[in-house]
Amino acid sequence: MNNIDRLFDAVSAKGHVCVGLDTSVEYVPPGGRRSIGEGSASDAEAVLAFNKAIIDLTLDVAACYKVQIAYYEEMGLAGLSAYSQTLRYIRERGGLVIADIKRGDIADTALRYAKGHFAGDFEADFVTLSPYMGMDSIEPWLDVARDKGKGAFVLMRTSNKGMRDFEYLETLSGSGEKKRLYHAVGDKLAELAAAHSGLNGYGAFGAVVGCTERDEAAEIRKKYSNLFFLIPGYGAQGGAADDAALLLREGNGGVVNASRSILKAWNAEIQKSGADEATATNAFAAEAARRAVIDMRDAILAAVKK
Amino acid sequence: MNNIDRLFDAVSAKGHVCVGLDTSVEYVPPGGRRSIGEGSASDAEAVLAFNKAIIDLTLDVAACYKVQIAYYEEMGLAGLSAYSQTLRYIRERGGLVIADIKRGDIADTALRYAKGHFAGDFEADFVTLSPYMGMDSIEPWLDVARDKGKGAFVLMRTSNKGMRDFEYLETLSGSGEKKRLYHAVGDKLAELAAAHSGLNGYGAFGAVVGCTERDEAAEIRKKYSNLFFLIPGYGAQGGAADDAALLLREGNGGVVNASRSILKAWNAEIQKSGADEATATNAFAAEAARRAVIDMRDAILAAVKK
Repeated sequence: MNNIDRLFDAVSAKGHVCVGLDTSVEYVPPGGRRSIGEGSASDAEAVLAFNKAIIDLTLDVAACYKVQIAYYEEMGLAGLSAYSQTLRYIRERGGLVIADIKRGDIADTALRYAKGHFAGDFEADFVTLSPYMGMDSIEPWLDVARDKGKGAFVLMRTSNKGMRDFEYLETLSGSGEKKRLYHAVGDKLAELAAAHSGLNGYGAFGAVVGCTERDEAAEIRKKYSNLFFLIPGYGAQGGAADDAALLLREGNGGVVNASRSILKAWNAEIQKSGADEATATNAFAAEAARRAVIDMRDAILAAVKK
Repeated sequence: MNNIDRLFDAVSAKGHVCVGLDTSVEYVPPGGRRSIGEGSASDAEAVLAFNKAIIDLTLDVAACYKVQIAYYEEMGLAGLSAYSQTLRYIRERGGLVIADIKRGDIADTALRYAKGHFAGDFEADFVTLSPYMGMDSIEPWLDVARDKGKGAFVLMRTSNKGMRDFEYLETLSGSGEKKRLYHAVGDKLAELAAAHSGLNGYGAFGAVVGCTERDEAAEIRKKYSNLFFLIPGYGAQGGAADDAALLLREGNGGVVNASRSILKAWNAEIQKSGADEATATNAFAAEAARRAVIDMRDAILAAVKK
């Protein structure tokens, strides 16, 4: 059993939604910001309270959470305290959390990072990693992951426009075989996964594959059958349930992340009803987030069954 | 004028050494650890005191500092407080500091990171960035950098063995031109640099080019004449002064990083003299670090003049 098996079970029980807690203080409703002062310590406090409200009402309908550390680093030390407490809050309630940190560095340094994010103040269940420097920047994480029952998702084909700059470049292997860079990365990850397979046939380290591009989605899913996917690009970035479903396998094999469409669901509901924005509270935002998660979960489940 | 001009001037005045404060508590001499307890808060305190001692005695002989954030994330919140205070200590004394964070993420997220590392608790003069996701993960940093007078170094050809996995892959452009991935990255960086050139002809964003490989070093330096280089791989990783000199240009154009050989110079001196390790203090470690920096500076200056 590896940590991907825990995620596999969570998907079976609760669907495919990964709630992205990329929480900016601007996403917190006026009621959640009131009575909290200004400055980054107060911002971080408001973000943490908002996150907790969202987590409480989505734990039973979301497979996992993804916390984007950039939004917390932006707020400095107070932000990283809120980050640490958000991770702990999820884990104490039995939830699974992916630390979206996209680290990638040489072996000695990778080991330091692994100790920092698989234990201690910043302990997460999974991390995201960047492959540019090569497999010796990934492998040290694996040793720590096995020791502590953790996992990772390595960037393969992302969901931004810039992915065409390098990820899409055709590369030539020593034997003259042509493949895109993201396939070169995927092939290495598939080898790694084969060597560290869990109960459900997935390696402990999966891949980040965005659902903004329909092209090749079915091919990627088929080719990398032992990689569990973390799928960004849903909703605000343009991916739909049908696109995401192409990256799933036998109803499992991936989690689909959405952030703003969930965190700002309260705002969309206020706009629609014409209610006074100033009345929106964290409790209301959490209810709206829950509705957004259930809608997204059901849309993906329906797309999978098509 | 851009921030690279400040670094250029520092190199002219003080040589090419970049002191890597990749400080693990294991590198702190017994005298620096004594009377400080156990646990990550105490470790972080010991690391900070050690860093300050090293900084005090190297400010006039080193061009800049590079602080590897992984070593501080490893120690959790207390570690990041030590990281923040190390950066502030360098900047308050007029030193220049590169935050070695290797971040790389989509545009909105990149902007959050940029705000987090070019201002506030984690304000640095430069950062390192990872290019895998493409230029839209780099460009948002540039807007913040220009606004705040900052700069960056983007990973191009690193100094680890794994660089051969992806960085060395031959890629094909749309027009059929063959080049290694690190050249594809370098070409994009050269374009960016040409658009944001400082007083000395270097762009505000330079590149990370390791000195562990002699092959191509002269060619890389010639081809990317407008990129200022951050050069890792010196010393412990195998690069020598002659190798580093090939990546410099007209006596400037790059800083050469060394970490362990400077931070642990006290240990090497103790081993050599046969003295009792327990007697080593931070003051002694700082004196040894200063000697190591001066030796390295002089070796590179001599290699440049050859």
